[in-house]
Amino acid sequence: MITGIGQLITPQVQGPELVVLEDCYIRINEGRIAALGPLEEAPPLRGRKVLDVEGGVVLPGLVDPHTHAVFAGTREEEFLRRCRGERYTSGGIRATVAAVRAASEEELYRNGRHFLLEMLRSGTTTVEVKSGYGLDLENELKLLRVIKRLNEDLPLDLVPTFLGAHALPEGKGSSEYLEEVLAMIPKVKSAGLAEFCDVFCEPGFFSVEESRKILSACRAAGLKLKLHADEFQNSGGAELAAELGAVSADHLLKVSDEGIARLREAGVIPVLLPGTPFTLNAEYAPARKMLAAGLPVALATDFNPGTCLINSMLFIIALTVMKMGMTVEEALIAATRNAARALALEDRGVIAPGKLADLVVLDLKSYRQISYFLGHDLVKYVLKRGEVVYARAHPGLCQD
Amino acid sequence: MITGIGQLITPQVQGPELVVLEDCYIRINEGRIAALGPLEEAPPLRGRKVLDVEGGVVLPGLVDPHTHAVFAGTREEEFLRRCRGERYTSGGIRATVAAVRAASEEELYRNGRHFLLEMLRSGTTTVEVKSGYGLDLENELKLLRVIKRLNEDLPLDLVPTFLGAHALPEGKGSSEYLEEVLAMIPKVKSAGLAEFCDVFCEPGFFSVEESRKILSACRAAGLKLKLHADEFQNSGGAELAAELGAVSADHLLKVSDEGIARLREAGVIPVLLPGTPFTLNAEYAPARKMLAAGLPVALATDFNPGTCLINSMLFIIALTVMKMGMTVEEALIAATRNAARALALEDRGVIAPGKLADLVVLDLKSYRQISYFLGHDLVKYVLKRGEVVYARAHPGLCQD
Repeated sequence: MITGIGQLITPQVQGPELVVLEDCYIRINEGRIAALGPLEEAPPLRGRKVLDVEGGVVLPGLVDPHTHAVFAGTREEEFLRRCRGERYTSGGIRATVAAVRAASEEELYRNGRHFLLEMLRSGTTTVEVKSGYGLDLENELKLLRVIKRLNEDLPLDLVPTFLGAHALPEGKGSSEYLEEVLAMIPKVKSAGLAEFCDVFCEPGFFSVEESRKILSACRAAGLKLKLHADEFQNSGGAELAAELGAVSADHLLKVSDEGIARLREAGVIPVLLPGTPFTLNAEYAPARKMLAAGLPVALATDFNPGTCLINSMLFIIALTVMKMGMTVEEALIAATRNAARALALEDRGVIAPGKLADLVVLDLKSYRQISYFLGHDLVKYVLKRGEVVYARAHPGLCQD
Repeated sequence: MITGIGQLITPQVQGPELVVLEDCYIRINEGRIAALGPLEEAPPLRGRKVLDVEGGVVLPGLVDPHTHAVFAGTREEEFLRRCRGERYTSGGIRATVAAVRAASEEELYRNGRHFLLEMLRSGTTTVEVKSGYGLDLENELKLLRVIKRLNEDLPLDLVPTFLGAHALPEGKGSSEYLEEVLAMIPKVKSAGLAEFCDVFCEPGFFSVEESRKILSACRAAGLKLKLHADEFQNSGGAELAAELGAVSADHLLKVSDEGIARLREAGVIPVLLPGTPFTLNAEYAPARKMLAAGLPVALATDFNPGTCLINSMLFIIALTVMKMGMTVEEALIAATRNAARALALEDRGVIAPGKLADLVVLDLKSYRQISYFLGHDLVKYVLKRGEVVYARAHPGLCQD
């Protein structure tokens, strides 16, 4: 039972509004929301475990539907060169591939654990994690096994995605590696290590035709589809996602009006990753255009060692509001319910009876302060399936 | 005594280089650096208090030479309107003035304490704090008294600045309020509550002529000078700072080449505040031009409830590297030694014998990762005058 809620914020289960309730309670049963309502209608506290959140803002656990959170090595020198004006190329991914191939599962596990716990402390309770730094069967499976272990051990849910087609490995031609990826798919599937498949569909990485081949094979194998689409150039990635019925199309910095229309018709969730253009000093995705077209925009961090080290969804929400013209309300819906939909998850991302009791408590007077206080340590509690899995150790914001 | 230092980073006492020492020790005596050198030359540990920083990066305590950290109220609605395209005006400052006038000293103290402790946890050990939200004698003194109490109570050093000329109070004409500010100066001085005086020299706030009058009176009263200069328009603020021998000229987004030359001739420290253009979606100050002219660029947060809520100098360093083309080395010198010079403090900002033992330990392998890991919780220890005043509670980055 949670009491003392200053504001409870939730997207509607259906519908475009962010619902704001004041002075209310949430009753939790077996990891799920059992009931919620005004404090005066709360059931008696006696005999219940009670968490008094002292006027804090309660929202659904944040969902991060696009990350590369398990890797080895760091790439600060590439980052610094780029800050001085150098362009982003696939060379960087290859550096991480070399480090991941050289790393033990134990090292990958330790790194992943560190960053995923950081994400948990910043309010994220469900994270998609991609492979894609192995680029051969052995190392792709190694990454996916680490993701599986982390999912079992840590108090957040990981959704594993096979991204064999992330870049061309050193010394391999495009058609040669395409065959190799196609051969990996049944093995990844039969190992039960991936729910989604993703392809970096972009000139210089994988063409629309190559992406279609890989994703079609993944779909046939029973994997759900995602797509890195139209990040650096408009190459028809969004259209391909629509054609194949992908669950999400991600990045979309250069998406065309036609691409937006297709995503809408096909019910594909657009996942925007503003941390990446922020890091690369590039233009942001046309969020307002997509919202105007009625698309259920979702947000993610894109956390990876090359193009976005930001792994806090609260930071991403702030960037979204400051740099893409989205409202706080739109950004919060995008980081919860719509982000869960980008993972085909209907059981979370809203606070409603029957949904998972994944909750974040922020030390704020109003959710309207969320992007205003960018960079501050706002998370007071994180609950996963009704259990407090993080409680902040130091004193909070006093704005009384 | 500090051992286990992976990298020790310090500006030279004089000179343009950032010095990097590996595997070394620091000996502290009575709050000051007594000695430092390679680990194999360290004096015997027996009988000494030892802090093993386990391979961390040690740098001088960060100095934040421009903040408005003591205030009441929040302005998220103005922030959100501006994110949707509304322009910044002085209206916002007046909202904070109303809140500060209505607030008790106790409330201002509590708010200031909260934010200053946040700053301490992010590695800042010396902070300039301005008044400027009172805009009458009684309330300016109230703010300055709160700053004094916070300085006495908290384990960081505050440098108080009188900023009576921050904006025109509601319903007062420019010449009327000018007289009022001039009358405040001797009272502020005799109360011993300010070391610096500052003026918001900008069309719509205080003209160059008005600023000259106020700053000259402050100088005559024995206060050191600072200036909000050339933020929104090039109005000759830098030239005025040079003419009056100010210690620093701050903001400088629109400074002219002539202004840069004058700052250099007069030895005025330029203080850049990239958090503000980041928040306002404005252009950044021409940092590379100033560095090319040989100016000892300093950095600060400008932390205030209207135009920059960022209060972490590590965040500011990251923005400086990502958005202003400064190197990590330049940014670190700017946030330590040069920032101390912007406060006329020669006893800190470098790690050298005789200087204050204000130190930060980062949980990183190399200082080159500082801006790469923007937004991560990197601070493991903060030492003020040789005492550990902050130690991080949760487990750190494992990138081994």
